[in-house]
Amino acid sequence: MSSRTIRVYRDLMGANAEWAGKTRRLLDKKGVVMLNLIGSPGSGKTALLERLGSGLSEFRFAVLEGDLETTRDAERLDRLDVRVSQLLTGGACHLEAKLVHHALRDLPLGELDIVFVENVGNLVCPAEFDIGEAAKVAVLSVTEGEDKPLKYPLLFRQAKAVLLTKSDLLPHIRFNLDECLGFLHSVNPRIRIIKTSALSGEGINEWLGWLLHLKSTCVAASA
Amino acid sequence: MSSRTIRVYRDLMGANAEWAGKTRRLLDKKGVVMLNLIGSPGSGKTALLERLGSGLSEFRFAVLEGDLETTRDAERLDRLDVRVSQLLTGGACHLEAKLVHHALRDLPLGELDIVFVENVGNLVCPAEFDIGEAAKVAVLSVTEGEDKPLKYPLLFRQAKAVLLTKSDLLPHIRFNLDECLGFLHSVNPRIRIIKTSALSGEGINEWLGWLLHLKSTCVAASA
Repeated sequence: MSSRTIRVYRDLMGANAEWAGKTRRLLDKKGVVMLNLIGSPGSGKTALLERLGSGLSEFRFAVLEGDLETTRDAERLDRLDVRVSQLLTGGACHLEAKLVHHALRDLPLGELDIVFVENVGNLVCPAEFDIGEAAKVAVLSVTEGEDKPLKYPLLFRQAKAVLLTKSDLLPHIRFNLDECLGFLHSVNPRIRIIKTSALSGEGINEWLGWLLHLKSTCVAASA
Repeated sequence: MSSRTIRVYRDLMGANAEWAGKTRRLLDKKGVVMLNLIGSPGSGKTALLERLGSGLSEFRFAVLEGDLETTRDAERLDRLDVRVSQLLTGGACHLEAKLVHHALRDLPLGELDIVFVENVGNLVCPAEFDIGEAAKVAVLSVTEGEDKPLKYPLLFRQAKAVLLTKSDLLPHIRFNLDECLGFLHSVNPRIRIIKTSALSGEGINEWLGWLLHLKSTCVAASA
């Protein structure tokens, strides 16, 4: 598949846990790490992936783009020559493991290090579904306010890391960073917190370092 | 019920359409208009209601606050002496009509003009549920990007109005207002669009005017 082709997958119903297990075994065998990015609409998930697309050579990656209806985010990444497939849920509020599995099967997994799944923009439902990922990563923009970890605790409890996005806007908004960090730690004491801005580049190297560490840990564990 | 008391209602399952119908008949009889506010987490729904709480005398209103787990938003409004009840979904991603109906029954409807329901922060699932409202109102912050009406079309197709919030941040972000207005009109040519900022006060009077007009229209229709 050329990186200039966007394939479109539509949702199919199925027993979720079974498909997630299949996916985990497949990725283990291939030594590929899959991350499940979950955040509100407009929290900056695609912008972070665009930032990786612009000139990252430390690992080879592909993106599975979850959306209700449109292929807009996939087209944004395709313009940067990122290998991307579009997953359409047909109106459903989250991605399920079967749909992800079928799309993965068509990727050249032997040539990849990491697969990012950009889930549907939603802090609630995607957190409830295992899609076979190595880690869930929460994406929370500072414009959303400090208290979202308390109000949507399932995601932040399950996530291995949270990317606090749009840090370039901090001078212009009322956002108490210390309070937000306190809320995050109260919900999940072990969560890794990375403050980022796709615009200024803040935190992008730290995120890359975290990704590379996760990749080496996962490969060591499955060896 | 004192306006300084927050009552807490928990979700119960039920036939949604039937409860929505009961609610509509009850509100018609009482001459009360109910609005269903739907937007992403952190889009500024509570901030808009706080703005109404601070010194609005043109109509009498109450708020039903939908949340997964916490009573934080209800407490924000309670501090302003707004009459508020908390609806807890117990993790569910949207409000259902039965829960709303039971909370409404405990409000002094004869003393109210408008009831605002602040739905769970989510652009997808709440749009699928009729709770007996006179109108759905979409709340979209400019920090979320121009394309959300295309990506989450059901809500914007159903809404009678959209509040474009956080307009005070426009000088600091890349947001093409004309493009966003075009997307909104392509999804729903009749939607009323009001640009607002709870911080600067922009658009608040326009929103109040829209509310008063809706109230007079609904009362005339049910007379």
